[in-house]
Parts: sequence; structure tokens; C-alpha cells
Amino acid sequence: MPESRIPAAQVRRFLATAFESLGLPRADAATVAELMTEAELQGSDGHGVIRLVPYARRIRAGGLNLHPDIRVVKEKAAMALVDGDNGMGHLVMKKAAEIAIAKAKQCGVAWVGSRVSNHAGPASLYARMCLRHDMVGMYFAVGNANHLPPWGGLDMLLSTNPIAVAVPAGEEPPVVLDMATTVAAYGKVKAKAQRGEQMPVGWMIDRQGQPLTDPKRAEEGFLMPIGGYKGYGLAMIVGLLAGTLNGAAMGSEVVDFNKDDTTITNTGQAIVAIDPDAFGELDAFKARVDKLVRELRASERMPGVDRIWMPGEQSHAKKLANEREGLALPRALHDQLDTFAREMGIPLLQDS
Amino acid sequence: MPESRIPAAQVRRFLATAFESLGLPRADAATVAELMTEAELQGSDGHGVIRLVPYARRIRAGGLNLHPDIRVVKEKAAMALVDGDNGMGHLVMKKAAEIAIAKAKQCGVAWVGSRVSNHAGPASLYARMCLRHDMVGMYFAVGNANHLPPWGGLDMLLSTNPIAVAVPAGEEPPVVLDMATTVAAYGKVKAKAQRGEQMPVGWMIDRQGQPLTDPKRAEEGFLMPIGGYKGYGLAMIVGLLAGTLNGAAMGSEVVDFNKDDTTITNTGQAIVAIDPDAFGELDAFKARVDKLVRELRASERMPGVDRIWMPGEQSHAKKLANEREGLALPRALHDQLDTFAREMGIPLLQDS
Repeated sequence: MPESRIPAAQVRRFLATAFESLGLPRADAATVAELMTEAELQGSDGHGVIRLVPYARRIRAGGLNLHPDIRVVKEKAAMALVDGDNGMGHLVMKKAAEIAIAKAKQCGVAWVGSRVSNHAGPASLYARMCLRHDMVGMYFAVGNANHLPPWGGLDMLLSTNPIAVAVPAGEEPPVVLDMATTVAAYGKVKAKAQRGEQMPVGWMIDRQGQPLTDPKRAEEGFLMPIGGYKGYGLAMIVGLLAGTLNGAAMGSEVVDFNKDDTTITNTGQAIVAIDPDAFGELDAFKARVDKLVRELRASERMPGVDRIWMPGEQSHAKKLANEREGLALPRALHDQLDTFAREMGIPLLQDS
Repeated sequence: MPESRIPAAQVRRFLATAFESLGLPRADAATVAELMTEAELQGSDGHGVIRLVPYARRIRAGGLNLHPDIRVVKEKAAMALVDGDNGMGHLVMKKAAEIAIAKAKQCGVAWVGSRVSNHAGPASLYARMCLRHDMVGMYFAVGNANHLPPWGGLDMLLSTNPIAVAVPAGEEPPVVLDMATTVAAYGKVKAKAQRGEQMPVGWMIDRQGQPLTDPKRAEEGFLMPIGGYKGYGLAMIVGLLAGTLNGAAMGSEVVDFNKDDTTITNTGQAIVAIDPDAFGELDAFKARVDKLVRELRASERMPGVDRIWMPGEQSHAKKLANEREGLALPRALHDQLDTFAREMGIPLLQDS
């Protein structure tokens, strides 16, 4: 099955029209379309275009507020707590990132948390927003479905709770870590299912502790945390910082948005902006990052290794290639978008 | 070989006298002794009393400044950069934590970095300082010797760069994560060597990629990052935040303080204090943490699992037991301390 290559601008226009047809105000539809296309461009295919149909399902079921009053409910010089009023997470976290950046410009560092937010796409999207202001960005989120138990347990009370950190460089691409606290993110499991592929051993186990490799059986098992109990600890801590601290859902309060389209998810996230200019000369900092990147890349390599990659370097290369060559959407996804467009009476992706 | 149990107060007195005999001012010797004993109490045996002799070696070699001018060199409302003037890391990071807590009280959140600092003991020691002020604490550090290569590489350019996060609870013990970004911390490797034990498969591999289990051969191999490339990414990011951002050593600049007693290590660390009271009601937050802890603990368990532990819960229990029963120091370590005391002409541990 050949994959079609579609210019990013066309995908962006299609998504904007799609969200407008679902009832989002034009400016909000454009923002969400922009961020989802950005996710697709950087290769976060589990958090990109594939999410349109589930988002649409929730919107039609009344589970998302199309006209939210996204507002700061608590504030100090270097922090804010944003109530997303159950709006789309992209809108909430874009606003949160803007507040964090403005406060960090004043205070050197700022931390903005969210509650009553929703799924906002890949973690790195928001950490990367800080890069445009020459800042370091960190992002934490409570995932929107629980897929792992506490270490030694069987009840799925924790999500993959991702961490992203973006660090600006000088001539080198920025260093961007974007990782789930599990060996694989659940979005990757869904992408495997969509592509009809099997998962590697080690991504999931079933309740008997046996490897689970069929992504269609994902509901029968749970994701494995990285480093065993360490990953469990990280998932819990990220949840405490992004969820519990903000009065957002954590543990059994987390709503499985794959199964439940109406209950308010009360998703919690946090973004931290750090201004390197407060710590010293910005250019000197960037030069030190470049030096480190080059030194790591130049390391002697293990047999069979062609290149040493920095965190985020492959996403960066993918983005450049996708911008040049267009986005490659799997046939099944393309068909799904066509069906959606016909249902909504909007132009097909290829006509957008 | 039976282990002797020694009251913590006696260990503290012995260490204070030891550091004073090495030339530290009395108040500084007391601070370092206090923090090293605290480390031992919580079960961080790789970072406790075992470090006296290596610290002493560096002090005698002139590699540590006994009268440092520890000072803020950059500052904004929610951040500071502290220059440790090559003083003992414990003194630098205690001061950094105090500054972070005071600033967070004002701004809600504060981040304090260090440079020209030194090894400061277990990461959780400083994150825990925030707990006494009902704050969340985070700590990042560049480790003091490189033990892992970039993912796919062979040159040891990264350290175990630990992360600690401490979250206050209500009736439950605080949740405290303290983890190296490697499967095992190097301190644990050294503790295994000291105890004459083998390491489990998975802690280290040699340059041929084969498991390395003899801790005495540790120099022939490197530590494995958690989750493979994810742990490599975390180690790099922690190093960027705790080292590069502060103008401290990172990559090939890191001085191996096990082998080199004189070169200034220029160690970098960072501490973040977050005031939950700024995000809402403190007591309500603590109650939510308690609820989450109890929910996770009550999870159905895998066969053979007696109890589900929270991060830091075992350290907490160990601390209570050690305070009650005294510290159990391995015979070899006790002998080492006796030798040290005789050399310095100070009372033996048992007479302290």
C-alpha cells in the first residue's frame, strides 16, 4: 500500500476546516490545526492527524467545551495555575506556555500548571515553544488513560505521564527529549495497531506477566515502565507535579478518553520556562550546548552503529524532510479522513 | 562478620571532629557531618560515611577550598546562580536550597543552580530540605565521574546524573524519588565492591557489550542507562540543566574525583522549590497526596508481592529504624574509620 505525500499546508487547512465544522471558533480551529500539523511534521504520528477522529467523537458527544473561558485562577510572580474550562488541551497549553515564557522573562524561571484541560498532543510541542524565545522548556503531563499499575501491582492506576525538555543550541539543532515514562507510549501502540504491525517484546505484559505483542490485545495488559521501579516512580512523580499539584485528575480519577467521550477529563499539565540569559550570556550558553553535542556525536561508536543521535535530532531531521517532501499518511488514516470529510460535508484532504 | 550498631549522634560527632581535624571551620564541619549522617540514616550508604576517606584525600591534596566564599553571582526574582568557590558540595547546596525556598515563598517557584561546587551526597538530601517548609523539592546534579557513553557510543562522556523529587504528604510519609539515570548508581557499584558482592546482570556492560558483574572490574565497562536511549537522553538533559546552564563541567570537562584529587571539579547542581500553597490550599494538596498513596498501595498485587512501596517509603522506614537502633556500618568501613582516626589523632568512632 503506497503512502501518499501531502504538503503540510494542505493538512493544516483540512484540519482547520474540520475543527471549524465541528463547532470550534475559527481562530481556535486554526490553532489546534497548526499544533496537530506540527506534531505530524516532527514525526509524532501517534499524536498528530490520527487524533482528529477521536477528538471529533468527543466533541460531538459534548465532552469538550467549544467555547472555554481559559483563565488564570492562581498566580504569583513565577507561577500560574490555568483552568482550561474543559477546552481542547492545545488551546490551554498554548496559553500556559505563553504565560510561562512572559513570567520567565521577568523572573528568570516560571512554572505554569493546568487543570480541567484535555489531551494536548506530544509533550515536546509545548517545551519547544520556549525555544522560539531562546528559553529552555520543560513539560509534564498526566496521560489520558491509565496503562500501568504501581510496581508489583495489577490495578492500572498510572498513565505513561510524559516528560519533555527542550534546550536551545547555537548552530546545532536544539536538544529535545520527549519521552513517556514507559518503554513505549500508548500512542505508539495505537499506531502499531493502525499499521497492522506487532509490538516488540518488552513494550507490554499481560496480567500473568507474559509478554504481549499484539497491539489489538492492548487492553488485556499494561505498559512496562522504564528501568522497572524507577519508571514507576517517575510516572507517579510526574503525575503528582502535573496532576495532583494542580487539582487535576490522578490515579483512579483519570478518565480513559479512549472509552469515555463525555466525562470531563480534568487533565493536568505543567510547563516550565527557564531563561538561560538569567544564568549568564545566552550566546555563551548556546556555544556550550553546541560543544557538548559535537563531543557526544564524535564519540567512538559500537560496532554496527552508523551515527550517534542527540535527543530530538531525528525528529528535527524528520521535520525538515516532511516540510520539504510533504507528510506521508498511512492509507488507512487517509481513508478515515475521507470518510470524516464526507460525513461533515467538507472538502476532502486532497482538495484542501 | 557481625555489623556493629552505632547511634547516629555518635557518627555525627565523629564526622564533625574528623572534618574539623582536616581544617574545616567548626560550623562547616558540623553541617557536612549532619548531612552525611542524614544520608547514612536514610540508607544512602553509597553517599554516607563511606565518603569520609575520599573527601579527606581530596582535602589533603588541596583539591577542596576549606574557606570558600559561596556567593550568588546571578539573580532574578525566581532564580539564582551560586558559585561554590570550590567548597564542599554539602555547604554549597545547603545554601542553594535555602535561597530557593526563600524565593519560592515569594514567587511560588524558584530555581537555584550551582557551579564550582563539589559532590554533595545523595540527591534526595536537598530535595528533602524543601519538605520541612511544606514545599516540593527537585534536585538535579552532574555526577562526579563519567560512567556511560552516549547511546551507541563507547567514549564515557556522561555521568549517572541523578534526579530527586520530594513531595510532602499529610499523614503518609513524603513521596521521595531519588534515582540515577542509570540502572544502578556508581555509588552502589562501590558499595558492592566494599561488601565483596557481585553485581546483577544489567547494571554494567564491558566495551564488548558483555555483562560485567564483578564490581572490582568496574573501570573496564560502563553503566547502562534506564530504558536504553531514554536514560541516555535523561542523563544528557540533567547534565544540560545542572551543568551546562550554570557554566559547570559537563561531558569531557567532568573531573573523575575517584582518580584526580587536585583538579577543581566545577560540579554543577540545581535545586527547584515549588510552594503548593501558591497553587491552592496546602492541606487539600497534602490530602490528595495521601489519597493517591493509599490508592496505589491498595492495588491488587502480583503473585509473590507482599507490599506495594511508594518511592522513598523504604528510605523513610529505614531512617526511622536507624534512628531507633543505630547505624549498621560494615566491618571494613569501621576499620577504615579507625585507621583514619589514628592517623588524625582524633577519638575513635566508638569513643566519639
